Amino acid sequence: MREHTPLSDLERLAWLRLIRSDNVGPITFYRLLAQFGSAENALSSLPELARQGGRRGYRLFPSSDAEAELEQLEKVGASLIGYQEPEYPALLREMEGAPPLISAKGNLHLFGRTVIGIVGARNASANGLGFARKLAADLGRGGYGVKDPVVASGLARGIDAAAHQGALESGTIAVLAGGIDKIYPAENTRLHEEIAERGILLAEMPVGTQPTGRLFPVRNRIISGLSRGVVVVEASPRSGSLITARLALDQGREVFAVPGGPGDPRTQGTNGLIRDGAILTESAVDVLRPLGEAGILSTKEQYLFDFTGEFNDRSKLDDTERCRAVVVELLDFSPVAVDELVRNCQFSFAVVSAILLELELAGRLERHPGNRVSLINEH
Amino acid sequence: MREHTPLSDLERLAWLRLIRSDNVGPITFYRLLAQFGSAENALSSLPELARQGGRRGYRLFPSSDAEAELEQLEKVGASLIGYQEPEYPALLREMEGAPPLISAKGNLHLFGRTVIGIVGARNASANGLGFARKLAADLGRGGYGVKDPVVASGLARGIDAAAHQGALESGTIAVLAGGIDKIYPAENTRLHEEIAERGILLAEMPVGTQPTGRLFPVRNRIISGLSRGVVVVEASPRSGSLITARLALDQGREVFAVPGGPGDPRTQGTNGLIRDGAILTESAVDVLRPLGEAGILSTKEQYLFDFTGEFNDRSKLDDTERCRAVVVELLDFSPVAVDELVRNCQFSFAVVSAILLELELAGRLERHPGNRVSLINEH
Repeated sequence: MREHTPLSDLERLAWLRLIRSDNVGPITFYRLLAQFGSAENALSSLPELARQGGRRGYRLFPSSDAEAELEQLEKVGASLIGYQEPEYPALLREMEGAPPLISAKGNLHLFGRTVIGIVGARNASANGLGFARKLAADLGRGGYGVKDPVVASGLARGIDAAAHQGALESGTIAVLAGGIDKIYPAENTRLHEEIAERGILLAEMPVGTQPTGRLFPVRNRIISGLSRGVVVVEASPRSGSLITARLALDQGREVFAVPGGPGDPRTQGTNGLIRDGAILTESAVDVLRPLGEAGILSTKEQYLFDFTGEFNDRSKLDDTERCRAVVVELLDFSPVAVDELVRNCQFSFAVVSAILLELELAGRLERHPGNRVSLINEH
Repeated sequence: MREHTPLSDLERLAWLRLIRSDNVGPITFYRLLAQFGSAENALSSLPELARQGGRRGYRLFPSSDAEAELEQLEKVGASLIGYQEPEYPALLREMEGAPPLISAKGNLHLFGRTVIGIVGARNASANGLGFARKLAADLGRGGYGVKDPVVASGLARGIDAAAHQGALESGTIAVLAGGIDKIYPAENTRLHEEIAERGILLAEMPVGTQPTGRLFPVRNRIISGLSRGVVVVEASPRSGSLITARLALDQGREVFAVPGGPGDPRTQGTNGLIRDGAILTESAVDVLRPLGEAGILSTKEQYLFDFTGEFNDRSKLDDTERCRAVVVELLDFSPVAVDELVRNCQFSFAVVSAILLELELAGRLERHPGNRVSLINEH
């Protein structure tokens, strides 16, 4: 798999089947791809791997369902973009657990421009809404060495909607929690349509997916993943916007927060971010200047190939069940670092990785940021 | 001169004459004291030093004027406290350029408690005033290891007055720009009187001095000098409160600032302080916790004696006029570090210091923070 190489129709179908198969998340997806050389090869090995991990009757995502999804995407005017294709947003590609496939609709060349995220409270104040709209418009004009930035947000009610509105003229990307065809909330119907025409709608979930609570944090990581920096405008403590900000920090993005006077719960979250080191932001200049000074981030090359070549001696693993028992023994319901596991057993990194992969495909293992894993409680 | 030793009546009179004599500021005062061993000895040498610096007819502050000032202070119920006396506030004593004498009136034992400054805009918002009053009251209760703090401010209209009001119960210190008997502004007459009874009024300027514009920054350095930390509540850019905050930073004090939403000029200054590293403050906890963690600052001992013993070989200086010419040549109208001067000429630190002192007394030299000096333009 080489970056900037378009997928063939057959590859696209295999990629889609692989990412939609049970217990295959983005990290596992790339690992399987590295191990087996192609999605097609990975698909044919998956059931056996899952069986070795302790699960019988593992069912691949059927070809017919994948074909139906592709048809449906075409019908709603969206494309499905693979991780290594040239259209895929460069900064998002750098993110740990970047979606192998995204569906997108609209003015796709906007993906090539610098993206700045703006997120915030649904129940924003009139001041906050006005500020977000103006900030988005001002950011869209660029400056301080940042050329024609595009504003990304989550198309939620409140600050998100105001940010999209402000940047509609200059360019905006709406990252949806559900499928690309699902308009939510209903009050944003008009805005959804305008963005589909003049900006970009982006979704990780299959077309037709209803946006539900657990999908919002998953979506938030894409907003920050796309963006050079994320601005938080009004956020109460423990809000989704703060989660986006934390994700942005984890991803090495710049975080900006708009302060407010004491006593308003809608600015306690942003004040807290500033206290924790976010850049205090009163205008677009406060965002553009640091981003301009930091220069254009160089996208990490070869990110994908970290695990290539790790599995060249699988015979060692097949020799013995003992390895698997030891690794399972070392695992816990709370996350443990894979490096730690390797240190604590006599097997190589390649062997431990292979066992973890099998457990994951069997639905017995969960992956966490920072290359940590835990056992799943039900098993 | 030893710390915590009361001045005799004669010493107090000599100190007062020395600090009130032409071109003697605090830094020069301590230098003269170190050089001549006592204020009385310094007074008798001053005219000759000034003559050597190039000024004829130097006039000492008359004894009769000093006596009249002491009488007037007694009449208004204030005392004059010398730098090394036990009543002098310990943290203020650490400050570069601490006043050799302060006049004070009220409940002087409050000087022994931890002091926290609160300053801010004269044209404060209703929210800002309410916040300052509550913050002062909450701070007065202490907590997080900070016991019974006293709130210091400048008794100006707006935030200052609100802070004093909030802390009237628990303890407050008003630092006046003019003489200790001068009530300003008139609307604070009642508050001035209440503080004189229950708190402390403090002034550096002679009793009877009208507060004028140039005295406010001079006063501000005392608010921050007294305080473990300074909280700025609402401040527009380029306001006096920001000057106080910068002075506090120079003095190694903690600076706290209360944020506000973008667009209100009254919080642009505080937001700017936060951007520059001030601690974002939404409540008394945000102030008390860091101060408690920092623990009680140990007061620097022996601060006074830095220059003692530097002048034990004055004969070298008297030998030649050449030294003076070289030093004057090296000086400029913009400030230069004394260390730099010493490095750039072949004379010892003691000799350069003595020449600078003479130039200062002659009104030809100005001193700046960080032991820097410049020539005065008129000469």
